[in-house]
Amino acid sequence: MLTRPLQLLHKHRPTLLNPSIRLSSTAVLDSTTEEINHAMSKAASAFPIFSSASTGQVSTLLHNIAQEIEALGDELIDTAVSESSLPEPRIRGETARTTGQLRAFAALVEQGSWVDARLDVGGGTGRDIRRMLRPLGPAVVFGASNFPLAFSVAGGDTAAALAAKCPVVHKAHPAHPRTCELVSGAIKRAVSSSGLPEGTFSMVQGASPRVGQELVAHPHTKVGGFTGSLHAGRALFDIANARPNPIPFYAEMGSVNPVVVLPGALGSKWEQIAAGLAGSVTLGAGQFCTNPGLVFTAPGTGCAKDATMVSKFITEVARHVDNIPPSAMLTEHIHQEYIKNIDRMAIGVTKDIQIKTKRKRGSDSGGIVLHVSGAVFLKHAQELQEEVFGPSTLIVEFENQEQLNQGLVQLKGQLTATIWGNRDDFQQPSFSTVLQLVTERVGRVLFNGFPTGVEVCSAMVHGGPYPASSIDETSVGTEAIRRFTRPVCYQDCPDSLLPIELQDANAHGIFRKVNNEYTTEGVLVEEFTKKTVV
Amino acid sequence: MLTRPLQLLHKHRPTLLNPSIRLSSTAVLDSTTEEINHAMSKAASAFPIFSSASTGQVSTLLHNIAQEIEALGDELIDTAVSESSLPEPRIRGETARTTGQLRAFAALVEQGSWVDARLDVGGGTGRDIRRMLRPLGPAVVFGASNFPLAFSVAGGDTAAALAAKCPVVHKAHPAHPRTCELVSGAIKRAVSSSGLPEGTFSMVQGASPRVGQELVAHPHTKVGGFTGSLHAGRALFDIANARPNPIPFYAEMGSVNPVVVLPGALGSKWEQIAAGLAGSVTLGAGQFCTNPGLVFTAPGTGCAKDATMVSKFITEVARHVDNIPPSAMLTEHIHQEYIKNIDRMAIGVTKDIQIKTKRKRGSDSGGIVLHVSGAVFLKHAQELQEEVFGPSTLIVEFENQEQLNQGLVQLKGQLTATIWGNRDDFQQPSFSTVLQLVTERVGRVLFNGFPTGVEVCSAMVHGGPYPASSIDETSVGTEAIRRFTRPVCYQDCPDSLLPIELQDANAHGIFRKVNNEYTTEGVLVEEFTKKTVV
Repeated sequence: MLTRPLQLLHKHRPTLLNPSIRLSSTAVLDSTTEEINHAMSKAASAFPIFSSASTGQVSTLLHNIAQEIEALGDELIDTAVSESSLPEPRIRGETARTTGQLRAFAALVEQGSWVDARLDVGGGTGRDIRRMLRPLGPAVVFGASNFPLAFSVAGGDTAAALAAKCPVVHKAHPAHPRTCELVSGAIKRAVSSSGLPEGTFSMVQGASPRVGQELVAHPHTKVGGFTGSLHAGRALFDIANARPNPIPFYAEMGSVNPVVVLPGALGSKWEQIAAGLAGSVTLGAGQFCTNPGLVFTAPGTGCAKDATMVSKFITEVARHVDNIPPSAMLTEHIHQEYIKNIDRMAIGVTKDIQIKTKRKRGSDSGGIVLHVSGAVFLKHAQELQEEVFGPSTLIVEFENQEQLNQGLVQLKGQLTATIWGNRDDFQQPSFSTVLQLVTERVGRVLFNGFPTGVEVCSAMVHGGPYPASSIDETSVGTEAIRRFTRPVCYQDCPDSLLPIELQDANAHGIFRKVNNEYTTEGVLVEEFTKKTVV
Repeated sequence: MLTRPLQLLHKHRPTLLNPSIRLSSTAVLDSTTEEINHAMSKAASAFPIFSSASTGQVSTLLHNIAQEIEALGDELIDTAVSESSLPEPRIRGETARTTGQLRAFAALVEQGSWVDARLDVGGGTGRDIRRMLRPLGPAVVFGASNFPLAFSVAGGDTAAALAAKCPVVHKAHPAHPRTCELVSGAIKRAVSSSGLPEGTFSMVQGASPRVGQELVAHPHTKVGGFTGSLHAGRALFDIANARPNPIPFYAEMGSVNPVVVLPGALGSKWEQIAAGLAGSVTLGAGQFCTNPGLVFTAPGTGCAKDATMVSKFITEVARHVDNIPPSAMLTEHIHQEYIKNIDRMAIGVTKDIQIKTKRKRGSDSGGIVLHVSGAVFLKHAQELQEEVFGPSTLIVEFENQEQLNQGLVQLKGQLTATIWGNRDDFQQPSFSTVLQLVTERVGRVLFNGFPTGVEVCSAMVHGGPYPASSIDETSVGTEAIRRFTRPVCYQDCPDSLLPIELQDANAHGIFRKVNNEYTTEGVLVEEFTKKTVV
């Protein structure tokens, strides 16, 4: 998601744009190996206790964290605004999203069915086999630069890991160290007031890649969660897999989120699409994993039978983008990378790219619209779909639907793809191929909308085939909890020794699959074969 | 699970024990790179069609495969018996298990709820987000030597992958090539009669590791399933992770399946446990992933307050094992490895190991019971828990419960652990620690039983922390299907374009999570916000 490789962080830190960061970031001392070992050892010691906590305790912990974050009040808002350069309303919204996520996981835990309990009891063999999801163990979670709260210390990965009863060691992002310290303090107070062991949550700081590498390689670490650049994510994923005992490392590494505008929609709604696209591209200075960085168009039957329509659309997108005032980027380094990437695309890859906005370079971090023909795109398809982290988009003008399909075939894994179409478009015989090609390559398919804005809900998938994610699962929404768990089954276990979710009585009334039927009822083991205790 | 490293296959093939194999195995020509490319290309071409198949078609395919296997009749039984040296009743049982697995997946697909559908519709934001599990793409499946049918060409991995709508390219195990050819033919006839594309299933042969390596590295491959040795499984897992676009590679690599005999159970049931253990250790010449290769004992309170009890138990296990006649192993190479591993344990690792059976070496492939003190085990814990593929077990005599717990802490990841205990044992304050230590390290915890015999059901977990599995998921039971899928979500998708599982009507009446409630009802979108089509 970020273009900033982890190892450059240190070098570039003194050039940060926002003067208020200079003070705080010089205070970011890389945690030592001893400090990392200490945090991991505390997490390992906490695991047997935390993993035995009741659902009530876990839910209380998550609610308490949300309350402690709210109690930080304006100090948190001011600090995050000053460290991130993001506007106050955005930071307030992100704080609400962060506490909302924590409460969504609390509700998930309270309801309880997420453990995916299955019981196979009775039957000819007298079997009694019961299975549920259990926590993996200590989790290492990396904060992202672009969401100083919602994907940071108490962000989605931390909330999901704690909900699964995995102790968390958080690696703070050096772009907002004081914000991290504030939130870390809030979590620690919540851990303490919830009666859980201190090692349930720790935070380490570090701008050096060594810190993250040591965390992922640490023998006590059982799972990792990461949001950031492909470069850093892949490096850490490789470390996780090269361990003597490999661990799952879930890295969400962003994408270009293609938008396919079909001819019918282009003909009838080109003005609406152009305005919406311009807003989505420039939202938050384009610093979102779901920023739509690539747009596919082609003339076709119906309203948009000739290429004039495509040209009008491109001009309209550029006009809107030109009218949107630039906003500050998260760090000066990200800004410099933005300038460099635009130059790379427009000059380095091919000279056949045109810039359609008045703004030709990213010097003021404002939006830029690029345009290329389908034939040229197909020639440079790999380079032209590299993520540009910032408010730009590349509109590809294919000659016809078949050439557009060739473009889809070239796409790497994506977090999202968006299809704009009308009834005519969806009834074309060729449409099923478009939908198939798109669906195979993405985690989320949107229709007639824009990909920015990722709702935290049960059905959300924020992840996708590599390189969007290292492992194709979601990092947003309550299903993110699955990544911090493993299935465990108990065979002929005396009822009182089972986790409450698997006991005969089903005291929490959760949904369970019992002999292949879904039910919230308990089981009457008398009906089956009594479990024998010697 | 196997002790035979993949790269030794070629070299050792001429020394195979069973003369009938010589002929067939010289006929195993390694598939060429061109043949592998051809199989993978066919699978990739089949994917868009197969992944769009109806649940009825998939269910028909699985039923047809089962019928075609049954139609092979005695030819299949005779061939598998002759190639594997396994007794006919075992092969008949394994054939029934194989067709049973295929029909269990057919039933799962017909019922349909396995796709884990979630709908978040309506609400303040007018959202319409719907998610389900979808097939990953072409799967590469490796057959195992020790189950020439149930973990082979039409075994659990193939059945799970096809049920998920992933085309399969199967790598036949060179220990039973003619059996593989027969079953492959059966699957191909079923694919054809089910009206599915030819590339839905292909088989390649090969004794050279190159064949497997090329399959896992192939750009069209999206997921892999494997049952075999740690050596070969890890090598292939590393290839899968080192790809430019890494893929999940699910390797089940066996374990020593510790059995913990608590003092109360030892005191009251030592004869029953000894007889059962001897049977489990020697079953199928010990050639099972779940073979109990390690037994932990300690004197304690109650009936077994002194060490005499432990000694009596060990002597009894050895007496039973001595009375069980040896049976032929799968291949001469596996037999030679068995001899070598027993010698390594009993001489190479430490001289403080005693052999309690009359049989002191694995020369006739009969059962062997080894004995070591807890103190010596703790000194050599890593070497002494290396899997010996064959009918042997190592009984560790700890001095007390605390020392036994130290032994548990040293355990690597295991497929199973078994606890023998009575009411007294389970009521000891120390018991919760034993249960915790065991549960963290295994996929399946058994009580008062033996780990051999893995039931194919919804709650089964046959997998565990590394090195039992490369990724901690199950390869047996219907949940094995999860490994061949990825979550995909659709946002604001017109109803008619959605997969039937996510459409408003819920025509198949599957269980879905709708706005966080589980239901088999359809949704009335009028209640929420109508999806708009331009």
